Amino acid sequence: MIKQVREKKPLIHCITNYVVANFQANGMLALGASPVMGDEAEEVEELASIADALSLNIGTLNQRSVESMLIAGRAANTKGIPVVLDPVGAGATSYRLSVIDQILKEVNVTAIRCNAGELAAIMRKDWSAKGVDAGEGEGDLTSIALEAAKKYGLIVAVTGPVDIVTDGDIVHEIQAGRQVMSSVTGMGCLLSSVTAAFLTVEQSVDAVAEAVQFYGEAGENAAAVSYSPGSFKTAFIDALYSMNESKIQKGGSR
Amino acid sequence: MIKQVREKKPLIHCITNYVVANFQANGMLALGASPVMGDEAEEVEELASIADALSLNIGTLNQRSVESMLIAGRAANTKGIPVVLDPVGAGATSYRLSVIDQILKEVNVTAIRCNAGELAAIMRKDWSAKGVDAGEGEGDLTSIALEAAKKYGLIVAVTGPVDIVTDGDIVHEIQAGRQVMSSVTGMGCLLSSVTAAFLTVEQSVDAVAEAVQFYGEAGENAAAVSYSPGSFKTAFIDALYSMNESKIQKGGSR
Amino acid sequence: MIKQVREKKPLIHCITNYVVANFQANGMLALGASPVMGDEAEEVEELASIADALSLNIGTLNQRSVESMLIAGRAANTKGIPVVLDPVGAGATSYRLSVIDQILKEVNVTAIRCNAGELAAIMRKDWSAKGVDAGEGEGDLTSIALEAAKKYGLIVAVTGPVDIVTDGDIVHEIQAGRQVMSSVTGMGCLLSSVTAAFLTVEQSVDAVAEAVQFYGEAGENAAAVSYSPGSFKTAFIDALYSMNESKIQKGGSR
Repeated sequence: MIKQVREKKPLIHCITNYVVANFQANGMLALGASPVMGDEAEEVEELASIADALSLNIGTLNQRSVESMLIAGRAANTKGIPVVLDPVGAGATSYRLSVIDQILKEVNVTAIRCNAGELAAIMRKDWSAKGVDAGEGEGDLTSIALEAAKKYGLIVAVTGPVDIVTDGDIVHEIQAGRQVMSSVTGMGCLLSSVTAAFLTVEQSVDAVAEAVQFYGEAGENAAAVSYSPGSFKTAFIDALYSMNESKIQKGGSR
Repeated sequence: MIKQVREKKPLIHCITNYVVANFQANGMLALGASPVMGDEAEEVEELASIADALSLNIGTLNQRSVESMLIAGRAANTKGIPVVLDPVGAGATSYRLSVIDQILKEVNVTAIRCNAGELAAIMRKDWSAKGVDAGEGEGDLTSIALEAAKKYGLIVAVTGPVDIVTDGDIVHEIQAGRQVMSSVTGMGCLLSSVTAAFLTVEQSVDAVAEAVQFYGEAGENAAAVSYSPGSFKTAFIDALYSMNESKIQKGGSR
Repeated sequence: MIKQVREKKPLIHCITNYVVANFQANGMLALGASPVMGDEAEEVEELASIADALSLNIGTLNQRSVESMLIAGRAANTKGIPVVLDPVGAGATSYRLSVIDQILKEVNVTAIRCNAGELAAIMRKDWSAKGVDAGEGEGDLTSIALEAAKKYGLIVAVTGPVDIVTDGDIVHEIQAGRQVMSSVTGMGCLLSSVTAAFLTVEQSVDAVAEAVQFYGEAGENAAAVSYSPGSFKTAFIDALYSMNESKIQKGGSR
């Protein structure tokens, strides 16, 4: 599917946080997509309207950017392009949780890409998340992902030691990637945009699974170059650039 | 001219976008300039007043930062220091175009550094730009650059496969750089600030041409180290740091 | 002390500038701490309340983020966690100076981490700082640091060719680090957060000195890999990740 992404060179409108914006933009360029970043309410409707997908990230949200996310989200829905939501630090503050609820209510989101703690927070499950980290909890993650997918009518991709991708029906369980990926900020954020790029080829749970698998394999390739986070970050961008088709390990439906 | 830049160590006030700010600041330091970034209306008049040049970039503009750009621009004009405008994604939204028009009306801009699609948008020419990418069009780029330089009474540097630098009279055509430069976000943005640094030595079309030539050669040196965008980005900062005088290939006037 | 930092994996709430946010977050992760960045007034009280320390940085301050810094600072004080202030470009504008005065008045700051020019500005000493650079001045830096520590009742860490760390009583003079560190943006900003992480182990002048020493040695290790700023930046993150205990060179009290 990466070949189709590169042929299409989709324009992805990213409203994202300033911590990861540079890494995210460079990752998208390396992938073969074209990122455009802008969060001013005056222009986001127009930006979303020329884009092939919209990628929303609340990592450093503020009242101004949240308004822009809602405007862009509605414009994306009008145009029918995929919308990916990255609910960074969902459980860290009640403000984040209320913003996520509002986005999920007012925007037709195609896919949520998050970690375990963020998913648990959205679904109001007990989880020991800390800040923007995944944390640990007791529930069965696959069940929570299925429940979330059904509740909101969207695709859920929850990444961690094992990645789970589901639309509430089909479940892909993916084992790809390396631990060092959690030592680089924005690895999840960039994956969310990469997911948006794959969804421009096909709006399906399989496309999301393929994005996650592809991304994990890029992480493995980069980890083979260096396992130190500074060098790894550089090698990861190189890996996204040089990788061709991934071997998809599909999980079964349940 | 790079020697004079380094001797002067000019302070460049950059009001720029959060996607490229880190890369831009590191590039300026590697060059031998001193960047200061701040976009709060309360302080930009003072920041511009202590600076040797002002570098404006609308990549992630918002109403607050646009107001600051106008204040800083007027302060720079009062002090008589060069002002460089980077009209990122000019054609992507009508808001961007109206902001550019306003800046060009209220601020005496010394030089515009942009890509073909952005120049075409400013001059209302037909062009197939997409988001913040250069895109493709039919018109003769040199003619459009000459027209823009005359219309606004400034230097135009439009970069691409061939770079064109003109003040409406003299035209430099420069062939330097490598394709991989377009796979790293902020390469154009950083060049705009580098141009501002060169303009502190001499406010002339030749200084802009030399900045563009120098920058392209740094890109060639970095591409010789690596052609993968992650590694290239790192090598490019190293190249800016280690490079001395460039060989200027001057184009003729026409 | 780094072992204790890594065992604790402290959550550091950073309200920082968009120029260095990515580097700062990656440095904190490499160190073994967990950064969370957010500057919306609606949520900073909650963010500071779940954190182990608060790191404030005014590099690209604006009225909105200043309000958030004050809210977060008061919440951190209520919880009793350390607060580190990085007064970036203190002397560059009167707005910055007034904001620093306000923070020092309304928030109980544990430590200030700055360069010579910034310290001189805060203490209204004559100093030839330029923008956000350290600059040069005539006064005895150690005396000014002692005076500041006593006046505000906090720890002062002023970094430069020789680093001075004092609580107004004990003085540590530290010689560690390499000149190339001043060619990478955010080196000081990241140190301020690293200081916050060390202060979560022990709120003492010794903890700050150890953070400064550790950081300088990481710089030496990275400089041994590369002395070009692009490669150095990458090597520095790797060095933070791989370094274990540092050899502390304690200065005497005076």
